[in-house]
Amino acid sequence: MPKESGVSVSVIKRLPRYRRFLGDLLTNGVHRISSGELATKMGLTSSQIRQDFNCFGGFGQQGYGYNVEALYHEIGRILGLSNNIPAILIGCGNLGRAVASHINFNERGFHLLGIFDSNPAIIGRSINGYPIMHIDTVTEFCKEKRPRMAILCLPNQEARKLAQPLIDLGITAFWNFSHFDIKMMQNPNIVVENVHLSDSLMTLSYMVNEQKNKKIK
Amino acid sequence: MPKESGVSVSVIKRLPRYRRFLGDLLTNGVHRISSGELATKMGLTSSQIRQDFNCFGGFGQQGYGYNVEALYHEIGRILGLSNNIPAILIGCGNLGRAVASHINFNERGFHLLGIFDSNPAIIGRSINGYPIMHIDTVTEFCKEKRPRMAILCLPNQEARKLAQPLIDLGITAFWNFSHFDIKMMQNPNIVVENVHLSDSLMTLSYMVNEQKNKKIK
Repeated sequence: MPKESGVSVSVIKRLPRYRRFLGDLLTNGVHRISSGELATKMGLTSSQIRQDFNCFGGFGQQGYGYNVEALYHEIGRILGLSNNIPAILIGCGNLGRAVASHINFNERGFHLLGIFDSNPAIIGRSINGYPIMHIDTVTEFCKEKRPRMAILCLPNQEARKLAQPLIDLGITAFWNFSHFDIKMMQNPNIVVENVHLSDSLMTLSYMVNEQKNKKIK
Repeated sequence: MPKESGVSVSVIKRLPRYRRFLGDLLTNGVHRISSGELATKMGLTSSQIRQDFNCFGGFGQQGYGYNVEALYHEIGRILGLSNNIPAILIGCGNLGRAVASHINFNERGFHLLGIFDSNPAIIGRSINGYPIMHIDTVTEFCKEKRPRMAILCLPNQEARKLAQPLIDLGITAFWNFSHFDIKMMQNPNIVVENVHLSDSLMTLSYMVNEQKNKKIK
């Protein structure tokens, strides 16, 4: 597995999906699959699958296909899923609560240390075992526990205010649910994965609109 | 605005972000902007912006730039944001509740009619004004109210079971938060926008891993 650097984001974004399909195959007792069969199952072409896997040095054996279990674990390793990167979640509204209770962080490469909010009514409680602390204590907490990733479930303005202080406290990665574009801070040492739910819904709106136009034509 | 069909998905996915930036400009009293200035603000190149807008026939005037307000409204029109497509949400766990309470559907092209779940303890309540109904009544509801879009906040297996019956009831669009790949049903009349939060988190895990490797080198 020598070639991992400089792989395009679009290939990386397909890896979790490959892993999901391989996990389903394992659950169904399938231990070996050709790129052609995997392609059909996933709605891709076998040449795309081979190209994607070649970015990481290739996994298959000519005439044998892929070893499903080995490939599943190898993709997990490439994604760094057992790295347990310490993380904090900021903003415990509906969305923050959903993220804290819905996501299995330990199997996704992260270890959630705790949740921060400014609402005194919920400080001291916990969600899914994660303690809710006051946002005023986040500086002290970061200095002591050294989280590296922050999940922002905050309105635009609050995310904008907090991003730089968090970076100054050692945060180098953001899972950003807010509308504030952290990438615009143009800090090359920071990685950001955005989840813009409203953008996603508007994209669907466009597709429905297009669908309707096609029917009319 | 003649050319709208056949625009690539990656261009479409950028439209909501353009609209967000334009909205911010309007809020700040900016009414006119050159493609160069907009590019700098958004971390794009002005040629990419011009290319994107040319897909829809172009918006700018040579030597004047873009009229921010007109462009903002035009993108909203292209995205179909005032279409009020009737929608239902299925699955009222943490994630379903977060989606129902967090998203402003009316401003995103949809009109949420109600929420369905199988948990008797919550049937009859409401979230953000949307009534929670029993999933057993969804057939009757769809026949009467004719929703066209369904939001699936369900585990994989339940989404798999429900997708085809919902299509048979007239659903032609899915906002899919489950891990079931609806696109794999290969129905060309159905549009799907997936939100795979776990995939997004794993992508971030990869980026953090890469970041660490770079520092070691």
